[in-house]
Amino acid sequence: MASRQATEEDPDEAFVVQSVRDLGGATEGGVGIGDDAAVVGGGDVVTTDTMVEGVHWDHRLSAADVGWKLVAVNVSDLAAMGARPRWATLAATLPAPLDRAWWTAFVAGLDAALRHWRLPLVGGDTTRAPHTRVLTLTVAGRAASPVLRSTARLADDVWVTGQLGRSAEAFLQTTPGAAAARWLRRPEPPVEFGATLAEAGLATAMIDLSDGLARDLARLCRASGVGARIDPDRLPGGRPLAQSVAFGEDYELCFTADSASAAAICSNAARHGVTVTRIGVITQDAVPLLVGHDRWPASRFDHFSGDPV
Amino acid sequence: MASRQATEEDPDEAFVVQSVRDLGGATEGGVGIGDDAAVVGGGDVVTTDTMVEGVHWDHRLSAADVGWKLVAVNVSDLAAMGARPRWATLAATLPAPLDRAWWTAFVAGLDAALRHWRLPLVGGDTTRAPHTRVLTLTVAGRAASPVLRSTARLADDVWVTGQLGRSAEAFLQTTPGAAAARWLRRPEPPVEFGATLAEAGLATAMIDLSDGLARDLARLCRASGVGARIDPDRLPGGRPLAQSVAFGEDYELCFTADSASAAAICSNAARHGVTVTRIGVITQDAVPLLVGHDRWPASRFDHFSGDPV
Repeated sequence: MASRQATEEDPDEAFVVQSVRDLGGATEGGVGIGDDAAVVGGGDVVTTDTMVEGVHWDHRLSAADVGWKLVAVNVSDLAAMGARPRWATLAATLPAPLDRAWWTAFVAGLDAALRHWRLPLVGGDTTRAPHTRVLTLTVAGRAASPVLRSTARLADDVWVTGQLGRSAEAFLQTTPGAAAARWLRRPEPPVEFGATLAEAGLATAMIDLSDGLARDLARLCRASGVGARIDPDRLPGGRPLAQSVAFGEDYELCFTADSASAAAICSNAARHGVTVTRIGVITQDAVPLLVGHDRWPASRFDHFSGDPV
Repeated sequence: MASRQATEEDPDEAFVVQSVRDLGGATEGGVGIGDDAAVVGGGDVVTTDTMVEGVHWDHRLSAADVGWKLVAVNVSDLAAMGARPRWATLAATLPAPLDRAWWTAFVAGLDAALRHWRLPLVGGDTTRAPHTRVLTLTVAGRAASPVLRSTARLADDVWVTGQLGRSAEAFLQTTPGAAAARWLRRPEPPVEFGATLAEAGLATAMIDLSDGLARDLARLCRASGVGARIDPDRLPGGRPLAQSVAFGEDYELCFTADSASAAAICSNAARHGVTVTRIGVITQDAVPLLVGHDRWPASRFDHFSGDPV
């Protein structure tokens, strides 16, 4: 497919997202739909993510993994705003009759993740579905000063945390229980590091890497009205480019920062046991570019061949 | 079925609710799962409700009605806490290909209700499902002093707003578009009245009537450790008992209050254009009783025959 796909979305999803913009009127002091999480005023930040059986997970994830991951994908969105999670609600739609063993294992994984991020589950709703498990978690958090994806500045450095492509590698491995599977099954977004970056005013813009750098950095650039030049040799992890940028499910952070902040960022990362890598720079190009490549990588990944499509 | 059913829940639902109690640790200053909405501290209150196609609605509701009702059922939960809604998030799971006409009508109804209650939609998530539409709204609100269902006191009066059984009547009518259908399709829980009751300290306990008085008053009594004696001749609306107490979907409020508060409650109701009726009194019985009947009405309603089962 065309290289411009990096800045395109699924047209049905775009239609839905566009249709709900500003419903019910604007929030006071808030920033609405369009960032990783919504800022609802007073530093309160909220996000919601749904996982659908057969769409967001398959046999590679145990019920407990699904429970963990449902929390992780939501706190990753808050991390990208520099927010710490405060409370969560769960909406579970489950086929009848209830599979109590599956549910009990799911709850164990959910609880492990909630405790890991010190996040109380305060409420929820349980409903019946004819076919498929649908699990929605809503997480509210607070940030002293929320970091948006739309505020990157020209000549800022572009950073990522952790390694890229670990979930892709795990997904493509045929050995069940391989060590790498941990990243696919139990992602650990660097929430505390994100919050301290925001508190120290070190990140100018931030996004979480849930759909892969190709798609997520393109979103950050589009929102900020800037481009970027990324050095493929600096992408941390040294995996094939398709795995590093096109698969997604990294649940790492991508952020921009003034080049004068580099030392402070590195020492902050070391304090939190997080690795950080400078992978490029923000430019006035129209779109992000990959140095030495004639086009930005495709943002979709064929889950069967392991190739970008 | 036995008369004790009024205090029983679906065993699978009870299993699920019990399994998620206190997950992730307790909230500071909060009241967790078990009331209409969760109190998360600082007067913040949150609720979440899911509507599943084929389970929570059928051909009687248009797409726009579903949008309205998704908001109404959530703000009804907040009304029962004496809270005013502040913001909402929507998680929509939709079969592919997207039915854009259905979605556009749904959004119109959703927006009408959001504007009716001055509630901004701040965020959301859209996912694909293989089969069935699943729509989850999470609404956060604020109450100066949240009213729980567990704080009714001996000799308090029991009150309800509006009329009971209007949705039941509409459901059983065979004429499409009958005037009564409005109550089934576009419920209007008395949010502002509930908030002012709480602010004036007039309600000692409160619950919303989503599952019918038989089930919901039994819940309030169980949570408060009290009984009640209800006069069936005072149930407002004058519909058959099964419709009045066993169908549900009234989205009115049931609250308890000191008998000295009666005049203040009536003048407050008049100010908000809400009708209120004293239907009984809180007692030290083990369960609620219906005067002149040998048992509390069954809480389930056969949607085809119109009889309690």
